[in-house]
Amino acid sequence: MNDALARALRDAVGPAHLLTDPGDLAGYASDGRGVTGQPLGVVRPASAQEIAAVLRAAHAAGVRVVPQGARTGLVAAGIPGAEADLLVLNLDRLARAPAIDPVNRTAEVDAGVRLSALNAAALPHSLSFPIDLGADPSIGGMIAANTGGARLLRYGDVRRNLLALEVVTSEAEPRVLQLGAPLWKNNTGIDLKQLLVGSSGALGVVTRATLALSPLASTRVTAMLALDRDETAVDLLLALEASFGTLLTAFEGISAPALDAALTHVPRLRDPFAGKRPAYAVLVELSAGAAFDVEWLEERLGDTLAPWMERGAVVDAMLDRRDDLWAIRHAVPEGLRASGKVVACDIALRRGDVMRFRRDVAARVEAVAPQLRLHDFGHIGDGGLHFNLVWPPEAGPFDPAVAEAARATVFRAVVGEYGGSFSAEHGIGPSNAAWYTELVPEPVRSLSGAVQRLLAPVPVGRVDFHDPVQGDRA
Amino acid sequence: MNDALARALRDAVGPAHLLTDPGDLAGYASDGRGVTGQPLGVVRPASAQEIAAVLRAAHAAGVRVVPQGARTGLVAAGIPGAEADLLVLNLDRLARAPAIDPVNRTAEVDAGVRLSALNAAALPHSLSFPIDLGADPSIGGMIAANTGGARLLRYGDVRRNLLALEVVTSEAEPRVLQLGAPLWKNNTGIDLKQLLVGSSGALGVVTRATLALSPLASTRVTAMLALDRDETAVDLLLALEASFGTLLTAFEGISAPALDAALTHVPRLRDPFAGKRPAYAVLVELSAGAAFDVEWLEERLGDTLAPWMERGAVVDAMLDRRDDLWAIRHAVPEGLRASGKVVACDIALRRGDVMRFRRDVAARVEAVAPQLRLHDFGHIGDGGLHFNLVWPPEAGPFDPAVAEAARATVFRAVVGEYGGSFSAEHGIGPSNAAWYTELVPEPVRSLSGAVQRLLAPVPVGRVDFHDPVQGDRA
Repeated sequence: MNDALARALRDAVGPAHLLTDPGDLAGYASDGRGVTGQPLGVVRPASAQEIAAVLRAAHAAGVRVVPQGARTGLVAAGIPGAEADLLVLNLDRLARAPAIDPVNRTAEVDAGVRLSALNAAALPHSLSFPIDLGADPSIGGMIAANTGGARLLRYGDVRRNLLALEVVTSEAEPRVLQLGAPLWKNNTGIDLKQLLVGSSGALGVVTRATLALSPLASTRVTAMLALDRDETAVDLLLALEASFGTLLTAFEGISAPALDAALTHVPRLRDPFAGKRPAYAVLVELSAGAAFDVEWLEERLGDTLAPWMERGAVVDAMLDRRDDLWAIRHAVPEGLRASGKVVACDIALRRGDVMRFRRDVAARVEAVAPQLRLHDFGHIGDGGLHFNLVWPPEAGPFDPAVAEAARATVFRAVVGEYGGSFSAEHGIGPSNAAWYTELVPEPVRSLSGAVQRLLAPVPVGRVDFHDPVQGDRA
Repeated sequence: MNDALARALRDAVGPAHLLTDPGDLAGYASDGRGVTGQPLGVVRPASAQEIAAVLRAAHAAGVRVVPQGARTGLVAAGIPGAEADLLVLNLDRLARAPAIDPVNRTAEVDAGVRLSALNAAALPHSLSFPIDLGADPSIGGMIAANTGGARLLRYGDVRRNLLALEVVTSEAEPRVLQLGAPLWKNNTGIDLKQLLVGSSGALGVVTRATLALSPLASTRVTAMLALDRDETAVDLLLALEASFGTLLTAFEGISAPALDAALTHVPRLRDPFAGKRPAYAVLVELSAGAAFDVEWLEERLGDTLAPWMERGAVVDAMLDRRDDLWAIRHAVPEGLRASGKVVACDIALRRGDVMRFRRDVAARVEAVAPQLRLHDFGHIGDGGLHFNLVWPPEAGPFDPAVAEAARATVFRAVVGEYGGSFSAEHGIGPSNAAWYTELVPEPVRSLSGAVQRLLAPVPVGRVDFHDPVQGDRA
């Protein structure tokens, strides 16, 4: 970094918050997936005004800035590349205590606040921000990725729970814009804040948001069901929706190999089926407010399941009131990693296509990559599927080219033949930018690029939506 | 209309579907509110391709096009002005039968299909498109206005239930773009379709949409509650949310004058309170799926209300299982119209501010417009308030300047002092464009204008979001 830029950045954020020492940089250079880059430097502002000053200085020096949250993302959108030419703008210090408005059921939150911290602040008011994820991301990162998670069926994604944003534009002269208001109803023209949601940090730096909170679902029942076959899952989903409507909070599917991997490799788990592995398992959650009691919910769930069990479509049903069954669901990724090298495909389908796709495309993957074994799991309730493939040690050394061929088979089939999505909930970043270029139609990319240039005429972040930064496809 | 344009339009849609005879135009010139304009002509295409051809012809002739739905909007965005220079593009013929995917819980719908027709198609699958409105708009119009309605608390607005759009761009060479996919989870870059939602037809012509459907809430209980005072409403809302969570489908407030107007002037209604008019009334709806029974819901509602009734905060409670209580709520606008000239203000506030605003601003309105009497009602559950004022016959002849002063007082207070909205659910059109210019900050308007020019470089519709067509303020 040249001296003039370093001086300007120190002026902007204070000398303690510009990191340039290689030892200090390491912690900001990689993410949970193991993607590692090389920052030119790391700057840690504490306010929107400091961010505007950082952007101004970086723009003057011709240095591109990458906004970075909690590095829990799965597409490397907040991680610098290998060339040590990008300035990391880490938002951890943008983390004042969330301002909860319990009557309005909203929270004003700085972008650097973690999801867990927001929920801790909401809990005393019996409220929650109901996006449920395995990780603990920052709010800014959640907005940049439009995270979905396991309870989207009831609560929607981040977009659905976002009322207002504060954003610093990436212009030659950066501005702090307020978009939206802390209101549930508000239709006063084009809703510009929507552009920032799922934009991977490429349209500006989100610094603060007003989020909708939900009443805490204080009464909760979870069931793990063993099914006779995978197709039963979708029929059962429809039956539960008809019975329980919005009380159905989650409907998660776990394939036999994925369940086996979790129960085999994650020792803390208790096997709910006592060794008899089902053809397909689903985790069902019903939850409701204080007017309900758990016994009543369990009874009603039992009533709905009874005919399914009588005819053998539901082979076994384990109920609990704690988190043991969720622990199994959340342990699946760990189980997969312990089983071999994971080739992840975060896809979405129409719900009615999910099971057909699994069979159809598993067979095609086997043809191009016989070393890989399908260990899929995911959010059957919303059509989101982690169509993950495992390369076990006994298949010999991992071959990236074979893995790449497998992912190409999956992504081309899901988009080209099934009209599905190659990125259900992880967003776009260097990890899948090449797929974006191949699979998103040109008119959409070109219009997206134009929108991006409008809000961020000086490029920011890792993605260009017209002509994405070409990353790896893994 | 010049001959060349008429010829090109007839070529585009067939001779029967270009209307130029003044007698034929009248039906397309005005809306439910009584706003009347003068179309240059009316063209009625039957497909996206025909719309592209219409736009091409109109652009070549330098004539601006106004997309028009069912004319149920309340801001005149689909009605031509007085100058007879705009070509009305009526979308009634874009109305193939909706394609319902019951497993995915989605519907693909043409823009000209009415809400009632969509729900009729969804009903056999025990599904519904849950946006609940007094009117029966077209789907295209609902998207252009991002309608909210009485059940937003549970189901959200149109935006929340929209998965994909087809749009014809207003470019010199119009294109048909597909934005989004029929998927519940999909994060593959900037979500461009969001720009069209609530854009009043000014960003292009929406021709088809994929909408999320909800399980039909087959079990339903409605209650009309008489409260001791208005402030009780918000406390009660929080208690019901804590008890019932997402089973609380509606929480509507009706002020004493609004209730009185409905019960006095709409003869078909039965007075639930037998003549004892409460200080404030709320209509509460709980609804749920087939696993619930009405008796159980009534019992639980009774349990929750019991302490409120014991201490006299809820003075009286009428329950029903039919639509009698909703009929009262829906009759309020009719009751107001029968009471005098209505000056409507479609505003939104933080929920905790609603009651304070009512008192504070009612007093200020009285100071500038003593002839007007507040008859407010609305969606207390989402902070949306129809802060409607009535000029009764006994106050003498209606004076638009006084009404204008009253609206100015309301809108400036709601936006400037309370951080609320001057258009909660009706959107922007000629009727409130001047307020948009005054109350939306310049940076937002200028960016909105730039976005509009990107998607619609050839102007279309009645609104320009940077520099709106200056309409009346009524």
